[in-house]
Amino acid sequence: MENRKRIVVIGGSAAGPKAAARARRLDQNADIVIIQKGPDFSMASCGYPYYVGGVFDDRCALLSTPTGVIRGPGFFQNAKDIRAIPMTEATLILRDEKAVLCKDLTTGEERRFDYDKLIIATGSKPNMPPIPGIDLDGITTLQSMKDADLLRKIRDEGQIKKAIVVGGGLIGMETCEALNLAGIDITVIEMMDQIMMFMGCELAKLLENHVRSKAAHVITGNGVVEFLGENGKLSGVKLGNGLELPCELAVMAIGVKPNVDLAKRSGIDIGELGGISVDGHMVTSDPDIYAIGDCVEVVNRITGKMTLAPFGDLANLQGRVAGENVILGNTATFPGTIHTSICKVFDFSAGSTGLSESKAREMGYDDIVTVINAGPDKPGFMSGLLLVTKMIADRASGKILGVQCMGPGDVSKQIAQSSIAIQGGLTVDDLVNSDLPYAPPFTLAIDNLISTSHIMQNKIRGYFQGISTTEVKGRLDKGEDLFLLDLRGPDEYEAMRLGVGESLIPLGALRKRLNELPGEKDSEIICFCKISLRGYEGALILQANGWTNVKVMEGGIMAWQFSREK
Amino acid sequence: MENRKRIVVIGGSAAGPKAAARARRLDQNADIVIIQKGPDFSMASCGYPYYVGGVFDDRCALLSTPTGVIRGPGFFQNAKDIRAIPMTEATLILRDEKAVLCKDLTTGEERRFDYDKLIIATGSKPNMPPIPGIDLDGITTLQSMKDADLLRKIRDEGQIKKAIVVGGGLIGMETCEALNLAGIDITVIEMMDQIMMFMGCELAKLLENHVRSKAAHVITGNGVVEFLGENGKLSGVKLGNGLELPCELAVMAIGVKPNVDLAKRSGIDIGELGGISVDGHMVTSDPDIYAIGDCVEVVNRITGKMTLAPFGDLANLQGRVAGENVILGNTATFPGTIHTSICKVFDFSAGSTGLSESKAREMGYDDIVTVINAGPDKPGFMSGLLLVTKMIADRASGKILGVQCMGPGDVSKQIAQSSIAIQGGLTVDDLVNSDLPYAPPFTLAIDNLISTSHIMQNKIRGYFQGISTTEVKGRLDKGEDLFLLDLRGPDEYEAMRLGVGESLIPLGALRKRLNELPGEKDSEIICFCKISLRGYEGALILQANGWTNVKVMEGGIMAWQFSREK
Repeated sequence: MENRKRIVVIGGSAAGPKAAARARRLDQNADIVIIQKGPDFSMASCGYPYYVGGVFDDRCALLSTPTGVIRGPGFFQNAKDIRAIPMTEATLILRDEKAVLCKDLTTGEERRFDYDKLIIATGSKPNMPPIPGIDLDGITTLQSMKDADLLRKIRDEGQIKKAIVVGGGLIGMETCEALNLAGIDITVIEMMDQIMMFMGCELAKLLENHVRSKAAHVITGNGVVEFLGENGKLSGVKLGNGLELPCELAVMAIGVKPNVDLAKRSGIDIGELGGISVDGHMVTSDPDIYAIGDCVEVVNRITGKMTLAPFGDLANLQGRVAGENVILGNTATFPGTIHTSICKVFDFSAGSTGLSESKAREMGYDDIVTVINAGPDKPGFMSGLLLVTKMIADRASGKILGVQCMGPGDVSKQIAQSSIAIQGGLTVDDLVNSDLPYAPPFTLAIDNLISTSHIMQNKIRGYFQGISTTEVKGRLDKGEDLFLLDLRGPDEYEAMRLGVGESLIPLGALRKRLNELPGEKDSEIICFCKISLRGYEGALILQANGWTNVKVMEGGIMAWQFSREK
Repeated sequence: MENRKRIVVIGGSAAGPKAAARARRLDQNADIVIIQKGPDFSMASCGYPYYVGGVFDDRCALLSTPTGVIRGPGFFQNAKDIRAIPMTEATLILRDEKAVLCKDLTTGEERRFDYDKLIIATGSKPNMPPIPGIDLDGITTLQSMKDADLLRKIRDEGQIKKAIVVGGGLIGMETCEALNLAGIDITVIEMMDQIMMFMGCELAKLLENHVRSKAAHVITGNGVVEFLGENGKLSGVKLGNGLELPCELAVMAIGVKPNVDLAKRSGIDIGELGGISVDGHMVTSDPDIYAIGDCVEVVNRITGKMTLAPFGDLANLQGRVAGENVILGNTATFPGTIHTSICKVFDFSAGSTGLSESKAREMGYDDIVTVINAGPDKPGFMSGLLLVTKMIADRASGKILGVQCMGPGDVSKQIAQSSIAIQGGLTVDDLVNSDLPYAPPFTLAIDNLISTSHIMQNKIRGYFQGISTTEVKGRLDKGEDLFLLDLRGPDEYEAMRLGVGESLIPLGALRKRLNELPGEKDSEIICFCKISLRGYEGALILQANGWTNVKVMEGGIMAWQFSREK
């Protein structure tokens, strides 16, 4: 056994064990070790919020194989012939000697592991801002099994009544739902003007409305400037605007940063974004050392620029790539990310793939076209549920740059198919005739992705001019006198309406009632309906009758993220 | 209004109204007519089975806009300025005169419509084989609103106790479920050896098992040779094997054929498959006549050959293309189909995109690789449900040729994302690192499509040799003495097992119990587990220990479509 290849993996959460398992499958003879700082391995960390929220009660489910075997040292030894060593911290990589120095956190002993190839999978750590009071008892994160245990205990004990979540990103919103389900009065505090930045502002505001409808509070555009305490225990938070909120628990969820302490200390190159630099094979600046998972920087496949993408699915994929490369040489390549993500937010889902509008502009795409499309995921007679989709395309190439989608409908499918389209470099013209699976229990005859592409094609060709709900509201708020034309029927208008001074002319009567519109043919007229399909048809009629400044309010009332008259 | 373009559309179901609506949006001045043989327009015909089954009760939902307006002549006139003329049959196209002769089916009068551009959307008609007794009372199809009304009435009256469905395709299985929900004892009779040919035999047999578990009967490999009657009323059917089944109702669902009578009579070219020949712009052999929907032949985008694809979603897309082309000239192109379909079958869904294995071979792909992957759609702690997926790839190019998927899990998303991958020409190597939306409420960290691609990549590289459940069972039935190795744990084996003489060695004990395996290193050993992931790992261990003829039974017990011991 002298010639056994020695593979050492530092980190036992998602990426590390995957790399080790892949390496084992490709080399039954290798000597493979996983060094893990904590007590557990292969924790299903994305499942923590659902354990905290009581969606399931068996803590072991987070640590077990599908057949119920705990993924501990015994499992790794027996099933995979991998030595999985818990409670052991890697403290230094002696790169010249190709060895890792570790500290046994139970006994304090130093241990040394020699390697032929080393894989760093040290993950990320939650951002903790240096705010006064941050060390008070009652402030936590939801990043580790220990955090999950603490919050689950809080849920089960039922003593805490008020909590805040700092940060309205993915983990923040999942934590909000979990604590709300636990019966805790919850407020999300987000410093930016919206939650879930990657969703774009319109969709994010619609999500906020939904969260509020579930009796959870959301405060945007405001940050915590101080944690208030009594006897060392959290008693409230003070916001930038002076507001003080009492609370007994605060969960910090303002993102994570790559955990690169070991790599940096060992002289491995760190990138500009603070993650370990790797090439497409996941090789670091040291050719015998690989890095994977939350601790690395990867390529954004759309922009070609480096990015941080701390997601469990990508960690697994990178693990597979590194596991192959340490055994076979650098044969496998990780192509990067397009930042696909999804999140359950109470009865809604919210997902994104590719670039948001603001991200696209920030990345230098200056001739983009965006559309918002609202509509059901299935026919009404099959209990269809609403989807609101925003698509961003590059005008010149027609390539899809990003899709965001949210609502009670089947968001998961929309984002999944959109992500494949973006990865495949598909254009709007490719998507307009997509052959997707259609049957009434699943989707409309024209699936939401296709109808969004139809609208996008129409917009790129200039068949209509869109205006966002945000712009309409902004101009109304400034006191502008807009001519807004609601093209729905009187019954619909009675049941639900914006009530911002709009005129009602049902589409079916429009051709006969053109005299009720502004006489000046260059007057601006903004058409809409429930989802703005009739709004679009109305706009076409007006344009054909000589009006030259007709706009369609995209997504219609379903995309109106502000309060309505009814 | 002298220069109004005259557009005549023959057919008012899916494709025709879509073409008319698109033409209107692009030309507010055109004179647009839809001629419809029956009384209704824009029927949501794919919804018929759900109306028959009682999923919803309002018949009007099949004929209405999402806001509840019946899509009748008044709706078309007011909302779209389109003349929609019901109960009128087009009898002849006078191509030289550019006119359509029609018969008013109410008055018997002849009418004439002059056109500049004509669109034929005459749909399909159900195949009715010339079997003795086919004209008996009690034999119907589920193709028209009238059929749906009849079957719904039968459901509501509750008099009929036994029915058969002839044909186990999409409509056959949907009808089976609908009548079963209506409380009728139902038997599906399929002449081929399996239902749902496009699913491949393994997945189809698993579906059959599910259907049987719902107390519906399925007979394959047998056809109806005679309908038996009493006093002109259906009383039973006689099968090819002599079996007689009593029944009071028979629904014919053995597919449809293009309805090309009018086109043929009018001298328009018909293709080899019996559909109207069109080019990519949906233009027929007459440059002023377009044809769309079920009545045409279209290109299979994978094989490049002509095919029939009578699906409602494609009809809509073709309608949009033709509607644009009659107005703008031939600017829009319909690229063809990849035969994507999906079907709800009781608690399972079954979908397919691209080619099945047998279709691929039939089409001349002689070096294909297939894999079957079974696994949950979500983590167990989020109540994940099983998916069984079959993927077919071209070995040389690595391109995905087809994906079929079935089970209680989220099949719709699997087929949707696979269909985009096939349309985009993506390869296995592209898919192994897909960036898909991951969160526990929706999917696994490694989504089913990605894990299927991983298995496919491993198989293409020769890391393992697969064997199908079909081949294993066939060889067992021939009396071959196979060495089958179940790598699960004893508890799992107690709860569920094949019971075909397999040996049980849990994966975790395999390395220590190699002595229990056949000593001859070239002995065939077939490894499996619940889903054959441990089966794969076991095979790798055996191969590393010198066994040279090790196979993995793909999909494991979850893909075993035959009866089990327990």
